Amino acid sequence: MTVHQFKPTEYHTTFGSHAPVLRIADGDSVNTTTVDARGYDASGEQVTERGNPQTGPFYVEGAEPGDAVSIRIDRAYPNRRTGWTNNVVAEHVVDAAYVTALPERELVTWEMDLEAGTARIAPASAVGPLAGLASLVLPLAPMVGCLGVAPPGGQAIATATSGTYGGNMDYRGLMAGATVTFPVFAPGALIHLGDGHAVQGDGEIVGTGIETSFDVEFTVWLHKDMEMTWPRGENAGYIFTIGNARPLDQAVQHATSEMLRWLQNGYGLSAESAGTLLGQVVAYDVGNIYDPAYTMVCKVPKWALTHLPLVAGS
Amino acid sequence: MTVHQFKPTEYHTTFGSHAPVLRIADGDSVNTTTVDARGYDASGEQVTERGNPQTGPFYVEGAEPGDAVSIRIDRAYPNRRTGWTNNVVAEHVVDAAYVTALPERELVTWEMDLEAGTARIAPASAVGPLAGLASLVLPLAPMVGCLGVAPPGGQAIATATSGTYGGNMDYRGLMAGATVTFPVFAPGALIHLGDGHAVQGDGEIVGTGIETSFDVEFTVWLHKDMEMTWPRGENAGYIFTIGNARPLDQAVQHATSEMLRWLQNGYGLSAESAGTLLGQVVAYDVGNIYDPAYTMVCKVPKWALTHLPLVAGS
Amino acid sequence: MTVHQFKPTEYHTTFGSHAPVLRIADGDSVNTTTVDARGYDASGEQVTERGNPQTGPFYVEGAEPGDAVSIRIDRAYPNRRTGWTNNVVAEHVVDAAYVTALPERELVTWEMDLEAGTARIAPASAVGPLAGLASLVLPLAPMVGCLGVAPPGGQAIATATSGTYGGNMDYRGLMAGATVTFPVFAPGALIHLGDGHAVQGDGEIVGTGIETSFDVEFTVWLHKDMEMTWPRGENAGYIFTIGNARPLDQAVQHATSEMLRWLQNGYGLSAESAGTLLGQVVAYDVGNIYDPAYTMVCKVPKWALTHLPLVAGS
Amino acid sequence: MTVHQFKPTEYHTTFGSHAPVLRIADGDSVNTTTVDARGYDASGEQVTERGNPQTGPFYVEGAEPGDAVSIRIDRAYPNRRTGWTNNVVAEHVVDAAYVTALPERELVTWEMDLEAGTARIAPASAVGPLAGLASLVLPLAPMVGCLGVAPPGGQAIATATSGTYGGNMDYRGLMAGATVTFPVFAPGALIHLGDGHAVQGDGEIVGTGIETSFDVEFTVWLHKDMEMTWPRGENAGYIFTIGNARPLDQAVQHATSEMLRWLQNGYGLSAESAGTLLGQVVAYDVGNIYDPAYTMVCKVPKWALTHLPLVAGS
Repeated sequence: MTVHQFKPTEYHTTFGSHAPVLRIADGDSVNTTTVDARGYDASGEQVTERGNPQTGPFYVEGAEPGDAVSIRIDRAYPNRRTGWTNNVVAEHVVDAAYVTALPERELVTWEMDLEAGTARIAPASAVGPLAGLASLVLPLAPMVGCLGVAPPGGQAIATATSGTYGGNMDYRGLMAGATVTFPVFAPGALIHLGDGHAVQGDGEIVGTGIETSFDVEFTVWLHKDMEMTWPRGENAGYIFTIGNARPLDQAVQHATSEMLRWLQNGYGLSAESAGTLLGQVVAYDVGNIYDPAYTMVCKVPKWALTHLPLVAGS
Repeated sequence: MTVHQFKPTEYHTTFGSHAPVLRIADGDSVNTTTVDARGYDASGEQVTERGNPQTGPFYVEGAEPGDAVSIRIDRAYPNRRTGWTNNVVAEHVVDAAYVTALPERELVTWEMDLEAGTARIAPASAVGPLAGLASLVLPLAPMVGCLGVAPPGGQAIATATSGTYGGNMDYRGLMAGATVTFPVFAPGALIHLGDGHAVQGDGEIVGTGIETSFDVEFTVWLHKDMEMTWPRGENAGYIFTIGNARPLDQAVQHATSEMLRWLQNGYGLSAESAGTLLGQVVAYDVGNIYDPAYTMVCKVPKWALTHLPLVAGS
Repeated sequence: MTVHQFKPTEYHTTFGSHAPVLRIADGDSVNTTTVDARGYDASGEQVTERGNPQTGPFYVEGAEPGDAVSIRIDRAYPNRRTGWTNNVVAEHVVDAAYVTALPERELVTWEMDLEAGTARIAPASAVGPLAGLASLVLPLAPMVGCLGVAPPGGQAIATATSGTYGGNMDYRGLMAGATVTFPVFAPGALIHLGDGHAVQGDGEIVGTGIETSFDVEFTVWLHKDMEMTWPRGENAGYIFTIGNARPLDQAVQHATSEMLRWLQNGYGLSAESAGTLLGQVVAYDVGNIYDPAYTMVCKVPKWALTHLPLVAGS
Repeated sequence: MTVHQFKPTEYHTTFGSHAPVLRIADGDSVNTTTVDARGYDASGEQVTERGNPQTGPFYVEGAEPGDAVSIRIDRAYPNRRTGWTNNVVAEHVVDAAYVTALPERELVTWEMDLEAGTARIAPASAVGPLAGLASLVLPLAPMVGCLGVAPPGGQAIATATSGTYGGNMDYRGLMAGATVTFPVFAPGALIHLGDGHAVQGDGEIVGTGIETSFDVEFTVWLHKDMEMTWPRGENAGYIFTIGNARPLDQAVQHATSEMLRWLQNGYGLSAESAGTLLGQVVAYDVGNIYDPAYTMVCKVPKWALTHLPLVAGS
């Protein structure tokens, strides 16, 4: 149950079987930091190359392929007072015939009041075409854009995308209090995380949240011999599964199939009960729809499970 | 401002330029009923053929192509105490390799306590593989599965699908209190509605909500010369746009483009402000992902618009 | 075995259960004409509104839902010496980020030498940015863009799209010598045809072939009680099935499933043989990828079937 | 202009920046072998793990990111007399509702007459449900399923999929006589190849061609500072571009955009001429539709380019 204090000195722009930066045990926590998507840290210095550089990987003692690791986000919060966003929705998120109506892409600087938990466009940015947003105040909802483990087969996959191993999922629900469980594909699981967003709309449709550096603390549990295909998670209100693929229809299929498996194998429902229940209580959340793989989250409210004869953990 | 009492005697299984059943004026309300997806009415009698039979069409006096009509759902509530669902997620909503793990399709009967606002599986259905759901109680969240106007070009399109004219969108948000605005393609707009669901999960992934007959009241407003492409709506907390297409990615594109147009033309935002704002506050809701066309809803919270210099209506 | 001479005086821009213009018997042929996609006839006069106006519908005596009708295209050839194309690939057929690199859309006029069977850009069009194509000579490959029957359920569907009933499929293979079989959904089948292209690339990616008016002759056969889902066809070298849907992946699924059914039910292959054979000999042709529904054709070469113990007709 | 004789002793199941096995110069040829998709060599021995093991990588002297390398396949032919296929079309290539009609997956053994250039099902396999195919004789059309270079950003990506760097594209056109040009992302380009198919239908829809080991010879040219995004190629009749993505619609977009760029930058066409020409002469070939990324090939016949004022090489 150690809480490791870890100060990163190197970062990775792929999820892969890189040399571990720290070895941790089942139940341990790690208190660390992440840089922003362009490699800038808490002091506003660029300390590594751009492209969603990841902190880690963290080696979980005893984790082997066929196991699973749960990662609870205990804290994820900006550690500096500025961030940036894009100002234009991605061309592939609008109708092809609407693309020519999009404005030029420019970065927008935001200022954050970390005590009040709010963000607004920096006065120097809230001018010209953005003058109309000068008084906009957004509540912070800090989340981790990238989270995952080393992918299977010795692959090293760019932090631009995602898969069964997690990756750049940009799901707003990956905030403090959420726990996500990943299948283990490499010895030690090799946990990576980064790409903190102080605020983000569904889909990360402009290609950014409010990008900034984060203080992060997370706790890890190891599950030996746990069969699963896609990431599973839970928060105060829901259990959820995550599908990563393009088109979005396929992400839906991955997440829904995984939820049906979980309801049956984890919660003891018959196939008929799983379908009947899911049909009437399922909710979907859209994760990233900007990157090569899109993310769809399939949720079941916990209240719908509490009446069931058998309720197992995640 | 008349409230018309209308008792339907015929139904349509296409959205089309059918003979109007009632002519109403701008601002009028209609109090009527809908049968369930298989044509059964409040008394449990089958009064018309299956296939989402629609009540209407209602002719809005003065509505011409190029105009728009807003429909506020004032009331939408079951008018009988039984409903039915499927018990299995659609094959195309799960991974292709998972299809063989799905159980046989069977109808499940539900009972509703209309005073308490709850539904549960009928005792005769909550047996065998569904025994585990015997104590499940779901809160009613009644919504209208089908709503729309006559499609363009003299088309008559099955109530199984959807498009710019609305149709079978199965969006949980189309409940009492919501207003949806459609472009007008035919004289009189020709409003159709039906396919009430007492409860429904996102996506209508089993092909049904809790299907039942409804009492419905709605109010209509006419907007002359209002340019729009996809349905727009609002409820207490959000404005929203609706895209209908397959794959889901294209539905996202339609809804997002329409929201960008609305933020600019309706709320006076610059293209840069529309993109910047939408990127950080947008939320998406999944409508129907069972039918030939899928439905995606793009939402902006009203609180994010209240600070803006100019706020126009829907 | 009558050859009907039919001169159209009205046209339809939907596939639907319109009043028949002619009643024909099993085995009869029809010799008629089609106007171009904008309603211009052989004399270059606009005789009807634009939007792929169709000749027909032709009522096949005795055809009932559950039957099928085969249509052999005996002749399909331009009946005037000019045609037109667009000059720009559709926005949705290129990468979203490439859309802004597309030029302005303009019509290009083409001249045809009907005796030599060639087309070239008209001198008045082959100037400015098109000067480089002044010496381009294309061989005519005349084909019918739209072909089909009335859709199911009393629908009337715009000639812009396609489905199980055929429609605007823009498949280059629908030329003289090809036979296509459609399921019958309405009494008399109600055959529509139009949208002739003197030349067309795969996909109709600029939204047009060389659009022109046609002389057409076709022969019809009725098959009572023939179970099928998607159009099936054959030409000198291949049997083929046609899937119409978006995304293209789904069109592939429809066409491939129909071919597997045909190989089993029509050619007597076991499921294992159908899969084994198809895997090694299948070829796909891309039909329309411009319109709301895309078209994919699944082909099997006839030589691969001739060795089989049992060979049935189409 | 050396012809290197290279006998592989190790293989890779990722496309990545692995240690080169041989360094070659611009214009050099390599004569080597590939094992089959399960790691079996010419003698029928399993010499490496399954999963499309690749021969290489070959380091091209002087190749740097920003350059391109052309690979001409001089010879690609089976070097043993047996191969194997699957017997069932992949679940995701048929309609979801058709999946339950698919038979059990089993391997089928094929025998090849390398002198006659034919393949047939081995007598021991052509029994039971495959008895109907006992007399089927297929002409060999040997092709390379996997071809490509190291992907960008230090990635190592499974040989199950494909991207801008090539990979597992399963395009029937990658046979002797074809030349493919790839962008260079890593020093030396790092050419990988493998996964030979003696025969294959479009799409590799059963997940295999006739899988076997190959003798391969190829020649490489280096193009310094050549800007391109997706693979480009040519054979006797066509120039072509290759897009790799899912859904197939996106693969179409990648390939078509690359062809438009090539027609303009390589052949000197205006944007208007490129669109006009492509619209009427384009042909598409379906590559892999089995794997995570699908492959679509966009072709232009060389005869359509020969009349143009300026014709540049590939």
